[in-house]
Formats: sequence, C-alpha cells, structure tokens
Amino acid sequence: MELLKNGLCAPQGFLAQGVCAEIKKKDKKDVAVIFAAKRCRAAGMFTTNKVRASCITYNQSVLADGYARAIVANSGNANACTGPQGEADTRLMAETVARVLHIDDADVIVASTGVIGVPMPMDRVCAGIKQACRTLSVGGSHCAAEAIMTTDTVPKEIAVQVDVDGHPVRIGAIAKGSGMIHPNMATMLSFITTDVNISQECLRQALRESVDVSYNMVSVDGDTSTNDMVVILSSGLAGNPEIKDVTSAGYQSFREALDYVNIELAKKIARDGEGATRLIAVEVVNARSQDAARRIARAITTSNLTKAAVFGEDANWGRVICAAGYSGGDFDPDKVDIYLGEVQVAENGMGLVFDEDRARQELQQETVRIRLNLKDGSAAATAWGCDLTHDYVTINASYRT
Amino acid sequence: MELLKNGLCAPQGFLAQGVCAEIKKKDKKDVAVIFAAKRCRAAGMFTTNKVRASCITYNQSVLADGYARAIVANSGNANACTGPQGEADTRLMAETVARVLHIDDADVIVASTGVIGVPMPMDRVCAGIKQACRTLSVGGSHCAAEAIMTTDTVPKEIAVQVDVDGHPVRIGAIAKGSGMIHPNMATMLSFITTDVNISQECLRQALRESVDVSYNMVSVDGDTSTNDMVVILSSGLAGNPEIKDVTSAGYQSFREALDYVNIELAKKIARDGEGATRLIAVEVVNARSQDAARRIARAITTSNLTKAAVFGEDANWGRVICAAGYSGGDFDPDKVDIYLGEVQVAENGMGLVFDEDRARQELQQETVRIRLNLKDGSAAATAWGCDLTHDYVTINASYRT
Repeated sequence: MELLKNGLCAPQGFLAQGVCAEIKKKDKKDVAVIFAAKRCRAAGMFTTNKVRASCITYNQSVLADGYARAIVANSGNANACTGPQGEADTRLMAETVARVLHIDDADVIVASTGVIGVPMPMDRVCAGIKQACRTLSVGGSHCAAEAIMTTDTVPKEIAVQVDVDGHPVRIGAIAKGSGMIHPNMATMLSFITTDVNISQECLRQALRESVDVSYNMVSVDGDTSTNDMVVILSSGLAGNPEIKDVTSAGYQSFREALDYVNIELAKKIARDGEGATRLIAVEVVNARSQDAARRIARAITTSNLTKAAVFGEDANWGRVICAAGYSGGDFDPDKVDIYLGEVQVAENGMGLVFDEDRARQELQQETVRIRLNLKDGSAAATAWGCDLTHDYVTINASYRT
Repeated sequence: MELLKNGLCAPQGFLAQGVCAEIKKKDKKDVAVIFAAKRCRAAGMFTTNKVRASCITYNQSVLADGYARAIVANSGNANACTGPQGEADTRLMAETVARVLHIDDADVIVASTGVIGVPMPMDRVCAGIKQACRTLSVGGSHCAAEAIMTTDTVPKEIAVQVDVDGHPVRIGAIAKGSGMIHPNMATMLSFITTDVNISQECLRQALRESVDVSYNMVSVDGDTSTNDMVVILSSGLAGNPEIKDVTSAGYQSFREALDYVNIELAKKIARDGEGATRLIAVEVVNARSQDAARRIARAITTSNLTKAAVFGEDANWGRVICAAGYSGGDFDPDKVDIYLGEVQVAENGMGLVFDEDRARQELQQETVRIRLNLKDGSAAATAWGCDLTHDYVTINASYRT
C-alpha cells in the first residue's frame, strides 16, 4: 500500500470542487461537489439519531438501487428540523446538480452541516452548486475537503493505492469532524471514492465493517449528530476482476486499504475535536468478547473525567478503570493491567507505585496511548478521542448567538 | 409536610457526628458516624459500576438480613482498587465502630470516597472513627454532612415531618455530590434516617422507587462512580401502625415525603456539580412511556453540548432535540415542542422565531428550565444537571498530582 496525492480524485474517474457560496458568514468555502465519470456502485451509513436531517432520509432512497454518481454538500446550514421546506430544499440541491451535470437526480447524494432549524438560503446554495459543478477538476479534492469544514481547523484528506489481485486499486477520501461555525452538534461527514471493481454486496459489507472499526470508534463529546454520514462511490475503473466474495484475497486487500483510509481520517477527526490539544488512543486487549472490548474502549474515550485528566497531564488511572466499569462491557476488574504509553500504572486492578514524571511525559505526547490488558480472552479494540479543554467549553458556550 | 432542623437527627433515635481525622491533606472534617438507638430496618442501593469499592460488597452482606444500626464514612480515600488490604480496611472501619459503640459489627454500614488506588491511612481513620463515636450528638448532623464533603462547596442536609396515619413521622438526610479533594470520580453518597414504622419490604420498595425519581435522574458528568450509595435506616420510633402495604395511604404519605427529601438533595447535588454555575431542570411531558421520558430527560442533562450552551446562555435548542434523538427513548421528532422557561423555541420539531433576549433571560436563571412536550402519550419525567464550565475542566484537569 502506498500513499497518493489528490485525495478524492486519486481513484480513476472522479472530479471534485469546493467553492464559497456565502452560506457561512465568513468568506470560507461552503459548497462541495464530487462527480464520477460513470454511475458508481455506492453504499452509505447514516446517523442513528432519531432526529434526522431531511438529507439522511433522501440519501437512503437514492442508495436503495445501490448506485449514485455525485455528492453535493454544504457546510453552512444543517437543514435539520426544517420540516417540509427542508425536504424540498434537499431535493432542489440534488436537482441543481443533476441539471448542470446532465445526470439523473436520483443519483445525487446530498449532505448538509451547520446551523440547525434555520431555513436554507437556497439562492446562494444553488448558485454555489452551479459554480462548483462548472469548475469540477481532477485537482479539486483539496477544495472539496475545505468546503465541508465547519469548526474543523484543518482539512482532512487522504488517498492510497493497494494491489488487488494484481491490479492497482485506489481509494481517496475527505472527512470533517465536530463543530460548526454556528455549532449545534458534532456532525461527521466522510466521502470516499474508489476505482475498485466490487459487487454491491461486498461494497456494502466492506463499508459497514470498516466504519465499525474507524468512525464508530471516535468520540469528541458523545453527542451523535442528526446529519452524520459516510458514503462510498466505486467507479470500477481499476480493471481488477470483480470482487464478489468477502472471503477472497482481493476483498481482504481492499478492506485493509479501506480500513487504513477510514482509521486515518477518524484519528484526524478526533485530534481536531473542538478545543482538543491531544489525540487519545485507547487500546483494549485480551477481552472476553469484541463487544466488551469496543464498549470499554469507547467508554474511556468518552469519559469527561478521563479527558480532563489527559488535558491536565494527570496520570489518573482510577478514572480509566471507573469508565471501563460502567461501560457495560463484561470483564473481571481484578485482572486489569493498565498502561499509560510504556508506563504500567495498575496491575490486577490495583495501583502500582510508578514514576509520576515518566507517566506525565506519556501524557504530554501528541498521541496519548492508554492500554488495558484485561487478561480475560483474546478480543481487542481501539477507540480514539481527545482531551477536554477550556477551549471546548469556550467554543460551545456561545457560537450560535 | 413541614421542614425541620437537625437533619439526620430530626427523626427519633439518631445521633451523628463528623470530625477531622487528617485523612485529607487540608484541615477539613473527613470522618462521619451515624448511630441509631436501636437496630433499624435498613435498605440500600449501590453503584452499578462493575468496578466496586470493597465497602459496596461489604454493605450488601450487612444489609442481607435487612438490619443495620450505624453508618461510618470517610471522605479522604475511596478505598477502591486496593485489593485484599482494602477489604480488610473496610472490615476494620466497621469493627472499630462496633467496638466503641458496643454493637455487632455486622450492623455497621461503611462508606468511603476520595482518592482511588491508594492504601488507607488506617491509624488516622480509626482514631477519627473513635473520636466521632465518642462525641455522637443529637446536634451532630451538620458536622456529619460536612465530613462527607469532597469538592462539594456546601454541605447538603434536609429534614421533614409528615403525617402518616395520624402520627408525625420524620425523615432526615445528608448527601454529597461530585468531586473530591483528590478527585477520581463523582461519588454520590446519601444517608437517610427515619423514625417511620415500616416493613422491610415496603422500606426497600420505597427507597428503590424514590431513588429512581431523584438521584438516578441527576447527572454531573455522566461518570458513574465505584462508590455510589444510598442507605436508609428506619428506627420505627414514630409510633405509627406499621406500614405493610405499598398501596396504603400511609405508604403513599411516606413515599411523598421521602421523594421530597431525595429530590431536594438530588437538586443540591446537581447545582453543586463541579464548576457549575446553574442548575438545569429538564422536564419531559406527554411521552409515549415512562422509559422514553426518563431516557430523553437524562440524555439532555448529560449532553456536553447542551450543558456548554447553558453556560454560554445560548438558546441552542437544536442541541436539546439532538440529544433527545440519540437518547434511545421513543418519540416522534415531528411533534416535539420545546420551551426554555416560558419561551417556546420549537414547535412540531421545527424552530420558531423567538425573542432572543427573553430566551437569554431564561438561561440566566439560577435554575434553567427546559421543557419538552412530546404530544405523544401521558408519561413524564424530570432530570437535573448543571452547566459545563471552564471551572469543571480546571477542577478535573489536575487535582490528583
């Protein structure tokens, strides 16, 4: 596997663009369009929140036939809690793309993120969409990555090439994390392109499994958004024999590359969490079950007390084992060993005398590694989060008004 | 129902005391003892965390026969994650009380809160226990309330008198909330005394039901401690005919008074949450089910984004409906009306144009009221929480080291 440039446009058959449509107050890009040279096999995963932006329901109907050809996103207005007008505006976004690009509007995925419960400024949204569609480019991925940012401080973009059954296959992706110019929630968007030739069923399963070990293992603040989505488009232009079997070597190669792409973006999202100064990686090993490992890892990355302790460089492992205890994951508290980086701080559920200076050094790393050895089985999971800082409170205390 | 003075000692048959045993670094009270004139019918509810301090398991064996006569608590050391030595120290705390007060050590409830994973300084703990036992007093409730405080800024104490079947019955209680001098988690302790004459089964049920509408509806930071407990002792000295039936008028009168006591203490705990500047009360009405109402109310009080918006006096109702959406409670998002105090901000799941100044005034109240009318049934629930502030981060970033 090798890293490539050009993000979304590294795979064969994709163009992208991001423009400033003045939906946001500030002079920042806020409309992105991604376009494929042909209809793509497509799959998506969407928020589990009961309150869903109209685009979520819309996209599920777009993907019902397993195909899509374009994605349009705006990052100024979430178009959530906007009722029938919001539904009409989502359709109009898709229709605008379809009209300019001469494609079927039932092949256009729509994403929105931004302020909630406020009508969309559709004149500006549609003008921006037209401008983006007319300037689509093989060099446009970076602009698209910028155009989906809200309170993100850096654009998030990646591309890799991997050998699948003797053929080079490419995967590109952009993502955005938590926060908005007018934040209402921590919407996560990820758009993935690939030129792999893969069956509908295998594509769906690869996305589902990969999201479970990447985006679903990230927490910034525990708030699940109304607009979260991950969508993948596969052009099939790489020329590999179609992947039809999830047990095949080709599928495994593709899955590994897809996991790499999604985990790297997931880590970028956590590291760029609102106000964050550090990435926290929690690794749970030798768990009784995969479910237990996942629950425990996630509970630790979600614990305000653990997150604040990391911010304060305080080797407060009691909060770590406490979060494991209320995670709902099954384990034996009397067997747990805990490590902060290389420093073991607890053994068999009890504290060790450890070097506070060395532990503090581990907590000063750019990535803070917390490892729990449950000595209770063979399952493992890793989750990512960020520290809880004064800036998180500042960012979220007053942005809407 | 009328309010009384003397807290724990308002009911007939109870003495209390709180002393400074120098378990905490600072010169603050840290050992409390509560003692009944006779063996009491007793009931307790304990943390659901899988990682449990040794005193939790110990108390469950004490209460197995349904009786207890004393409670001893220290607020300097949680005695959690301390292994067999911790278990021995818990037993020694009970034995020390039993020896001085000439009672059975199987009738002594033990509570601890403070730093985790550190051995107890048993010389000082036992000296403090002896001193407290020897100075027990009918005026000692306030000192006991002070002696269980950790980062609490005010002691939490209450007593009421209520008529039960023509007899005056008294309930007294003290509680502590989140945070410690060396905080590791947000341990909640509540000790309740009463002189009501009530059967074992009715006492247990009353406590269980009352905890469900009070302490179980409070969140400061979503972290369930290893040491949480609520214990009630009933001396039976009020002289009312024994309450034996949960459908009786006597039971109802007692339950109402017990709910009042527990809800008032629960609100004090939330208001005194670490760094909090305001109490948040979330009322969910006309829900499909009690379970849905409880989940939705709790999710909103637990949402970092909602809590930060209250701190910032930002009428960001999108975060409220978003939290309802991921709560797991069933409701129809298109029917939800949302009020901030008296100001309606959303109707049928969509935003209303509202007076930002009036909404901000509601968010400046000492108690911020958020009300959701789900228009979907007849169940209701209220939960309490507090805002998320810079001081919460400061308090929790660096207290251990």
